[in-house]
Amino acid sequence: MGPVSGDAERLLEQARAGSVPALARLISLVEDGDPRGQEALRILHPHTGRAHLIGVTGPPGAGKSTLVDALIRRVRARGQTVAVAAVDPTSPFTGGAVLGDRIRMQDHATDPGVFIRSMATRGGLGGLAPATADVAKVLDAVGYDLVVIETVGTGQAEVDVVGAADTVVIVLVPGLGDAVQTLKAGILEIGDVFVVNKADRPDADRTATEIRMMLGMAGPRDGWFPPVLLTVATTGQGVDEVRAALEEHRQFLRSRGLLERRRRQRHRADILRILEARLRRRILEGDRRLEEFVEKVAAGEMDPYTAAERLMAQIGSAR
Amino acid sequence: MGPVSGDAERLLEQARAGSVPALARLISLVEDGDPRGQEALRILHPHTGRAHLIGVTGPPGAGKSTLVDALIRRVRARGQTVAVAAVDPTSPFTGGAVLGDRIRMQDHATDPGVFIRSMATRGGLGGLAPATADVAKVLDAVGYDLVVIETVGTGQAEVDVVGAADTVVIVLVPGLGDAVQTLKAGILEIGDVFVVNKADRPDADRTATEIRMMLGMAGPRDGWFPPVLLTVATTGQGVDEVRAALEEHRQFLRSRGLLERRRRQRHRADILRILEARLRRRILEGDRRLEEFVEKVAAGEMDPYTAAERLMAQIGSAR
Repeated sequence: MGPVSGDAERLLEQARAGSVPALARLISLVEDGDPRGQEALRILHPHTGRAHLIGVTGPPGAGKSTLVDALIRRVRARGQTVAVAAVDPTSPFTGGAVLGDRIRMQDHATDPGVFIRSMATRGGLGGLAPATADVAKVLDAVGYDLVVIETVGTGQAEVDVVGAADTVVIVLVPGLGDAVQTLKAGILEIGDVFVVNKADRPDADRTATEIRMMLGMAGPRDGWFPPVLLTVATTGQGVDEVRAALEEHRQFLRSRGLLERRRRQRHRADILRILEARLRRRILEGDRRLEEFVEKVAAGEMDPYTAAERLMAQIGSAR
Repeated sequence: MGPVSGDAERLLEQARAGSVPALARLISLVEDGDPRGQEALRILHPHTGRAHLIGVTGPPGAGKSTLVDALIRRVRARGQTVAVAAVDPTSPFTGGAVLGDRIRMQDHATDPGVFIRSMATRGGLGGLAPATADVAKVLDAVGYDLVVIETVGTGQAEVDVVGAADTVVIVLVPGLGDAVQTLKAGILEIGDVFVVNKADRPDADRTATEIRMMLGMAGPRDGWFPPVLLTVATTGQGVDEVRAALEEHRQFLRSRGLLERRRRQRHRADILRILEARLRRRILEGDRRLEEFVEKVAAGEMDPYTAAERLMAQIGSAR
């Protein structure tokens, strides 16, 4: 193997031995799409599949970070290690959330059993999902017991990212009207555990009841009835129950053989997104015909469907 | 031509002659991915490019629909026709927004110069963008002067959909803190006209100032400084200025040759999304090897990168 794969192997080895700098470097390489990151992902694949992958999402302001922090403390109290990949939708114009995560990490800075990584959302389709899924894989391979993927928002990208987890937690707040307005099609459907946070506010019980009604209408998913739990993350109230529900859901998945099924779905989605990214790159980089067709479509001489078909035929013949 | 393309041609002809049922049917065929819809899109391509394509987005509750309705009245008063494709993020669990749009359309039901179509968000990546872009094309080809694409939310899918327009309007409300938290990277960058709606609330001026500051930091886009306008859409206050800004932006694009550039970008994105959809379909439908590879990846015998490369080679050899 060349020096590049050597680098990836060494970094992975060091990270697996507990080196936080090596882990941070590895993740940066993966995030940047560096060839060494790609090589590392190849090598670490056989080491993945041990962690409990937990996706946490919900509308902005629901208190997801606070809830995750409270969860971390309870998970650590039981001797398990935990890593968090937090997707940060900060615009380049602002810097608040990144700063927030930096501050947040200081809480656990002296605890080698906790790792928190904040990732900025990048522009462009497919910018969010690939990197997050890959970073989660690194954290899994390095040996954390729980790997939490935390996203802000409830758009399609968030659904895709979080939906790839073993257990999906949807965090909402009292006053369901607004919350549900924010929820996109698909977000309620992917939830395994629902949390109504800030439950010391009025209407918390009513909100929980409304969610239960909506879930009741949808019926169980593969035999699982998603619990709806009340928490006050800032005081820790109800967080033990959330931790227990995560564990219970994992046991449920395992006992029904569903964990394997979810993971197969994840591998399938993985292969497809890698394939699509490569096809796209091949088309964009290697090819002048795309630009030629764009001109023809702009001139009204060709329609985009014909252009796509011609390019498709070309991919079929080019090696 | 066979009966299918005959159908598409006839529908298109009728829709271009002013038949609303024909137009509605055509859009349904396009939304459903029906071959007749595909055929219609091919045939109508040369008729596109005349309308002013306007994208409107912003966080839930910003009053986008009310603003668009107020705009419609002003556009109609000037004798221009307008069509709206409103993307509706309603969860299957709720039905509020669809109902809202039905009610909303009654306002203009007797006006043949206005057409409003509400489209449900579908699950799955790429579900939102293709259909909306295609529906906008139909509305353009049928002859509406203004075609408005309205989306709720500020996720990546919304950025992609709305970002394809000639002129992009971002609607916000006073109290920027929350609004900006909701804004993903990329949403401020794509705005050509910013509207602070509900400007009768406190803090409206401060919010406008903050947006202007952020935009000032980013600098002009191709020589255009996005205006930040205050409106109270419910009373119509400030809506004339928004209409004028849309017109001004279009004149600006035209005078700099940028309209053509935006449209070329749109054609390019069009070709790529059609190509990707077809490649994906070929891989998913035509191929047993994907499932074989998924099993191997699940068993740890292959990594997803190798699987993607093998599938890629196969697309290269299959015809």
